[in-house]
Amino acid sequence: MPLAPGDQITAEELQLAARNHGMPLEALRHDVTPVGLHYLLIHYDIPVVDPGTYRLTIGDRAITLGELRAMERVTRPVTMECAGNGRALLQPRAVSQPWLLEAVGNAEWTGTPLKPLLEGVDCAEILFTGLDRGVEGGEPQQYERSLPLEVARSDDLLLAYELNGAPLPPQHGFPLRLLVPGWYGMTSVKWLTRISFLDRPHTGYQNATAYRLRETEDDEGTPVTRIEPRALMAPPGVPDFMTRRRHADAGRITIEGRAWSGWADITRVEVDTGDGWQEARLGEAHGWRAWSYDWDATPGEHVLACRAFDASGRGQPDVPPWNLGGYANNAVHRVPVTVAGST
Amino acid sequence: MPLAPGDQITAEELQLAARNHGMPLEALRHDVTPVGLHYLLIHYDIPVVDPGTYRLTIGDRAITLGELRAMERVTRPVTMECAGNGRALLQPRAVSQPWLLEAVGNAEWTGTPLKPLLEGVDCAEILFTGLDRGVEGGEPQQYERSLPLEVARSDDLLLAYELNGAPLPPQHGFPLRLLVPGWYGMTSVKWLTRISFLDRPHTGYQNATAYRLRETEDDEGTPVTRIEPRALMAPPGVPDFMTRRRHADAGRITIEGRAWSGWADITRVEVDTGDGWQEARLGEAHGWRAWSYDWDATPGEHVLACRAFDASGRGQPDVPPWNLGGYANNAVHRVPVTVAGST
Repeated sequence: MPLAPGDQITAEELQLAARNHGMPLEALRHDVTPVGLHYLLIHYDIPVVDPGTYRLTIGDRAITLGELRAMERVTRPVTMECAGNGRALLQPRAVSQPWLLEAVGNAEWTGTPLKPLLEGVDCAEILFTGLDRGVEGGEPQQYERSLPLEVARSDDLLLAYELNGAPLPPQHGFPLRLLVPGWYGMTSVKWLTRISFLDRPHTGYQNATAYRLRETEDDEGTPVTRIEPRALMAPPGVPDFMTRRRHADAGRITIEGRAWSGWADITRVEVDTGDGWQEARLGEAHGWRAWSYDWDATPGEHVLACRAFDASGRGQPDVPPWNLGGYANNAVHRVPVTVAGST
Repeated sequence: MPLAPGDQITAEELQLAARNHGMPLEALRHDVTPVGLHYLLIHYDIPVVDPGTYRLTIGDRAITLGELRAMERVTRPVTMECAGNGRALLQPRAVSQPWLLEAVGNAEWTGTPLKPLLEGVDCAEILFTGLDRGVEGGEPQQYERSLPLEVARSDDLLLAYELNGAPLPPQHGFPLRLLVPGWYGMTSVKWLTRISFLDRPHTGYQNATAYRLRETEDDEGTPVTRIEPRALMAPPGVPDFMTRRRHADAGRITIEGRAWSGWADITRVEVDTGDGWQEARLGEAHGWRAWSYDWDATPGEHVLACRAFDASGRGQPDVPPWNLGGYANNAVHRVPVTVAGST
């Protein structure tokens, strides 16, 4: 069970779950997540933007889409994950978008590097502002988040205008979004309208109140930044519609999944089918990294588990570290499977 | 509030809500729903299909995708809605995919008409079988549903291989799905693999057990068929992240929405902003039909409502008719809005 037995979700959480969506885990079989299966977390409403009149303001410059498209063009495979992925599995549970484990996707993003546009800029932080507006924590606001100048100037940041070879769909930030590889998704501001230069750290809601690891409301906490390592498996066998319980036949089953980390390359994935942790085969990295493991499934009830390690020495805990906002829960993925006797 | 205050959703319902997804209602502003915003209800897992080896079996013929693409090619705008849309708003609530109101989309589907492929066929029903497999109601099964021969032979049914001008995404039935305009979405079998001719009515799970309007478990009930009329509005103003409460400024607000019915053309949409039902302006039909209404919003708390009528005389109830499975709830859409004074 993904939640504790008897756990219930509130009406407000359901409203969020009905509009945001995860990537069904069988889509881990796709190396590049098809449009419409990539996760989406949208704080307010999806804006409708006219690309003809759209301008990106950078400091005191106003740049058209055509000008951005005429600049250096780069395509990168990037795994993006929501900072709240796994939130609904924490106890007690932070009340917000109730993600189980599906808030991830791996896409090919095309755009122009941000770095050349920041040449000569000298400031403490760069602020990225989207067109989406709403009320959050009692504060009316446009969605915006800042990055320290040295992070914003990294080589791998993009101003992205294409997803999987086509213009961004509205829900992914059309016509332009920031893309910060390796950081949780809230950093990659969608419907980007303005880039501002700040002399001191930004104190807006999405930096100073939300997206912080804290133990209590009074705790200032630390910012949520890069993606913790995680391996997920495409659940083997077939599901029960209602319970999503997996049913498989006895025999050789190749378990497949993907692993990623925002801190460093994935170096190892392990699988436990009931006899302790064993090393999985790794594929090439393309954003995330494919892995597989051959399991000789015997009749009965099983719990399969997988976990990833990266080159920074980070791994995945058995028991998730709790925090007030329900962020960065990268506890080990476990999948119960019922195996029928072979006939 | 979408649910009764204090209402809670179970862990199993959340699992379904995390993998199926609705169309955020602000996307009603798009006449053609962008890929990734159209609703999705997937009973089991999304299959991965190799289009090169794919064959559609019709009776004793096996047809390749290339052969299907060489047949007559037709594009139709079609509004598709899940039979369970509105389920979570019923009380007591059927436990299944807990849709609020987002289970809809309007797409341009391209394929070849089914009718010529049924020429000379003489039988009671046609059975459409998908590649997706799972367990439901305790029964292992492939997803399949039948239609009476006379319905299957209607002019408007397609074997669809494109959505909005591109090959079907995996989650919409790649490489081929049935498309039955005007019927609830469960009829349009995805990942279509076989079309069979039946001498008597099909008694499989998805026809005889699921998708029936019944009052009790013992009630045989009647089949869910065509889409009941409905108007939905793009909620005005901006949302609160957590409660989704709408906030708008006083002044003239044009309320926009779409209306559709599977029984007949939409002839009238009405809006109530607090002074009784008033007629909205109608646009041209393109699948669904756009409508709009100018509202002079005054400071305070308001509840906006909309409802549609079609040429068959059908409309929308204030109080939804209850049934065990939570199907076809087309009760009037109501949106609470807080209007601030103009500054």
